[in-house]
Amino acid sequence: MSFTEFPSRLLENAVNEFASLPGVGRKTAFRLVMNLLKRDTEEVKRFGESIIKLRGEILYCKICNNISDTDICNICNDKNREKTIVCVVESIQDVMAIENTRQYPGQYHVLGGIISPIDGIGPSDLKIDSLEEKVKSGGIKEVIFALSTTMEGDTTNYYLYKRLNKYNITLTTLARGVAIGDELEYTDEITLGRAINNRNPYQL
Amino acid sequence: MSFTEFPSRLLENAVNEFASLPGVGRKTAFRLVMNLLKRDTEEVKRFGESIIKLRGEILYCKICNNISDTDICNICNDKNREKTIVCVVESIQDVMAIENTRQYPGQYHVLGGIISPIDGIGPSDLKIDSLEEKVKSGGIKEVIFALSTTMEGDTTNYYLYKRLNKYNITLTTLARGVAIGDELEYTDEITLGRAINNRNPYQL
Repeated sequence: MSFTEFPSRLLENAVNEFASLPGVGRKTAFRLVMNLLKRDTEEVKRFGESIIKLRGEILYCKICNNISDTDICNICNDKNREKTIVCVVESIQDVMAIENTRQYPGQYHVLGGIISPIDGIGPSDLKIDSLEEKVKSGGIKEVIFALSTTMEGDTTNYYLYKRLNKYNITLTTLARGVAIGDELEYTDEITLGRAINNRNPYQL
Repeated sequence: MSFTEFPSRLLENAVNEFASLPGVGRKTAFRLVMNLLKRDTEEVKRFGESIIKLRGEILYCKICNNISDTDICNICNDKNREKTIVCVVESIQDVMAIENTRQYPGQYHVLGGIISPIDGIGPSDLKIDSLEEKVKSGGIKEVIFALSTTMEGDTTNYYLYKRLNKYNITLTTLARGVAIGDELEYTDEITLGRAINNRNPYQL
């Protein structure tokens, strides 16, 4: 079924909005809207308001740029967290992914993207100045580069290294190696090569 | 990435709402919400309002139960359409599918479902009484059963036949046969059998 004509403008508008989401085609959008139509008015109102409220009221932490309901996010506000380590990530999703490991005790700094000349994103589009300010003002001992292991990630790592190396801090990156559950046979040679070079003592 | 903890309640609410849609998992919901977050406030407001407005203001045509912005839908209101033929369909989607063929000049009657004992849907849950009323009050020459070719569709067809057969009208169903583009080799035997029995004169 294609959609040359809708029986209702209201329906058409809602379908168009859903179809504007990434990865949602017109058929899927229509199916989602039909699902909403079957719900209680109140429930659909709550749905609509949740996204209006999110966009209208969401804040970004003034310290780390993480998404937050308050000026300073929960992580930056947490007195029990290590203040001397800052983990640099591309996005909020990455903060959540690292938080879910429950392995990291320090702070974050969300760049809001990654250097990508193809997409027209340069260093000035990212929160790099504020990161340097943070490091410059002292109190930070280590900055962890936790960016994607892509060309853009490597470029950004290198740029950050150039900017931050002059300060007296430790710069680290995430360990690269064979992922848990991976079979050696299917691991790419660069990953495998690094995993051999960075081998660790065997622990029982 | 799982979602044990969200950095923001507003974010969590919006993700939960999207994840309540059919076929949308939590990861997809999160991705969609992050996309909305990158848009203008006005744009997101329009999105949210489009679904609230749809659910709050949508009407169902008093004659055919099709979705409509007005009391009587465009199809029922169209003076150029044949009033003596009524095509019975399960849902609004089916009306749109048939409309898109541009082959059908008549009226519709949307049942709002199909008889399905497994899902607890009986004849009284569907708009069958109003269909019979329509037929009873005269002026209709033909009722087309355009339901799915499933067991539920066949059951509903049979029930409708029992209800409507006593009136002096023609009852028809959609032609069943080999779909355009289908290969005979892979066509199921019931379809192929019916296609042979209902064969048509060859037309150049």
